[in-house]
Amino acid sequence: DIMANDPITALQYSVTEGYAPLRETMKNLCRTRYGFDMANDDLLIVSGAQQGIEFACKVFCNEGDSIICEDPSFIGSLNSFRSYGTNLIGVQQEQDGMNMEMLEKTLSEAKNIKLIYVIPNFQNPTGNTMSLQKRKELYRLACKYNVMIIEDNPYGELRFEGEDIPSIKSFDTEGRVIYVGSFSKILSPGLRVGYVVLNNALSGKFVVAKQCSDVHTAILNQMICEKFITQYNLDAHISKIREMYKQRSSLMLELLKEHFSKKVTFTNPQGGLFIWCTMPHGTDTAKFCSEAISRYGVAVVPGNAFNCDVNAASDCFRINFSSPSEQNIIKGCECLGKLTKEWFGN
Amino acid sequence: DIMANDPITALQYSVTEGYAPLRETMKNLCRTRYGFDMANDDLLIVSGAQQGIEFACKVFCNEGDSIICEDPSFIGSLNSFRSYGTNLIGVQQEQDGMNMEMLEKTLSEAKNIKLIYVIPNFQNPTGNTMSLQKRKELYRLACKYNVMIIEDNPYGELRFEGEDIPSIKSFDTEGRVIYVGSFSKILSPGLRVGYVVLNNALSGKFVVAKQCSDVHTAILNQMICEKFITQYNLDAHISKIREMYKQRSSLMLELLKEHFSKKVTFTNPQGGLFIWCTMPHGTDTAKFCSEAISRYGVAVVPGNAFNCDVNAASDCFRINFSSPSEQNIIKGCECLGKLTKEWFGN
Repeated sequence: DIMANDPITALQYSVTEGYAPLRETMKNLCRTRYGFDMANDDLLIVSGAQQGIEFACKVFCNEGDSIICEDPSFIGSLNSFRSYGTNLIGVQQEQDGMNMEMLEKTLSEAKNIKLIYVIPNFQNPTGNTMSLQKRKELYRLACKYNVMIIEDNPYGELRFEGEDIPSIKSFDTEGRVIYVGSFSKILSPGLRVGYVVLNNALSGKFVVAKQCSDVHTAILNQMICEKFITQYNLDAHISKIREMYKQRSSLMLELLKEHFSKKVTFTNPQGGLFIWCTMPHGTDTAKFCSEAISRYGVAVVPGNAFNCDVNAASDCFRINFSSPSEQNIIKGCECLGKLTKEWFGN
Repeated sequence: DIMANDPITALQYSVTEGYAPLRETMKNLCRTRYGFDMANDDLLIVSGAQQGIEFACKVFCNEGDSIICEDPSFIGSLNSFRSYGTNLIGVQQEQDGMNMEMLEKTLSEAKNIKLIYVIPNFQNPTGNTMSLQKRKELYRLACKYNVMIIEDNPYGELRFEGEDIPSIKSFDTEGRVIYVGSFSKILSPGLRVGYVVLNNALSGKFVVAKQCSDVHTAILNQMICEKFITQYNLDAHISKIREMYKQRSSLMLELLKEHFSKKVTFTNPQGGLFIWCTMPHGTDTAKFCSEAISRYGVAVVPGNAFNCDVNAASDCFRINFSSPSEQNIIKGCECLGKLTKEWFGN
């Protein structure tokens, strides 16, 4: 349809800010669906959420500046921050989000902190969700210590249990939150389309960063996203994937309870893609994960990959429940359970 | 066709290095069409040539390092280099490429030079092409002073007059040339697909840079490029656009000769997209260009935008002959000619 009716738009150079109809559509969606004020905010299209996160670092940090992150956190973002020579300061990620006492202690003691990076919904890798109380406290502290927040929300639409919690951006009156959204988990990751909502005054800096990087996000891909949002039933589609992920997650959690050694605990996510498993303290996690692959053909990600401190050990691993079929979930959990019992007893 | 037969590949996450069939196709094309050895080289797909140029800077330069550029040169690359806090050292761009005496003087005197950036074919903005002799001398000097070369070749396929000149990469025996190619000028700029050919030993660093930026180039777009190269007649398509650009360029050059004040000189490109015009020394170029728009609706780009030193003046402006229709070329040249005569006499 796009190539038949609007081929020149789809193939020619476009503007760095993004395809105007998609920007308008997403601005409206941010207002109506997510409760963002948007009065002083702009919305820019990026080539996947990761690029928005990278630009936040490029715009706000010089070499040697610090970024506070949930510990553990998403390896892609951590590596992007590292690539700009910043220091990562990890604050313990708890079941209801970052530890707020540790956050304030860090903010009051450390120097040159420019950003706080959080994934409030169904965090990668833990699957945990930040409580409303902690979101408000985080925002209060960011204001008090004059630090910007990157709110990374790739999984927010994938809630299959419980109630939505307002995003930090929805109560941002100071233009302090850089909100990063994505089409990767609701439409397609291969298209590489995401978006950033940020204060108007910052918008120009992000545009310069993007001009210097990939000029603009592929325009055909932006048009596909725009058609998907405006011409199809977004709610019906999201309901469908939520239902699918709920089934897979429930199945996996049941099987983990059934097969895992009682020494291994795991999170109980209300959405997203991941479950986070914790083994007894001092476990050789690398060896455990490599045995899972070599002996049983089951791939899980060792927890140290997600640590802010690359040298820190981890007793944890991450399991994904969205990609494997139900049959493979059953097989995988049985195998993994067997391995945990060999390592840690019943 | 892609969406019907291979939708999962087209929509799922893909590998950072690029879509394997496209990489193989382009490696073969580099061997057979461009005479690259490729024995010790890798080829990575990037989201437009600009991203490859950015990564070269990110991988090789720290803040305060220097990059030697043709002066004037492509503003997108210059800004990308600037965004990493590098110093740009301009070396005068002549009709047959960079002034080699100035290049050697610069290499022998300046400190922390990490890269030499050149557009050997139909350079942006001048339209000039670097002679074979200068290409060889440039390579010799880069080896002597141990500096890497970025060879940016977006316009190489757009030759409509004269003979192809071997690219610097084709005689690179030391893995010293980072060659950057693009689908933007032969297929579509909006798809944002380019590629980088570089020594195997460097490939991993570029992959890390890309993982930290946009993870991978949109996969549907890579598949479209692969189909275009393998299933359509590339030579026939390129012949067609060459013929079109030759006609527009010839028409524009004739009209410039007819209508321009004799005080304004211009280049005579053998390919590419641009003609570079030089007005008398000391001209207020910004004012001239703004009058061209405000009084005649003709857009040309003032030359200072392409200077390595942002504060340096320029007596030049760039005209594009590929985008406007023949009718608009005629109208535009008449108007612009009139303006030159008002400013500088016959």
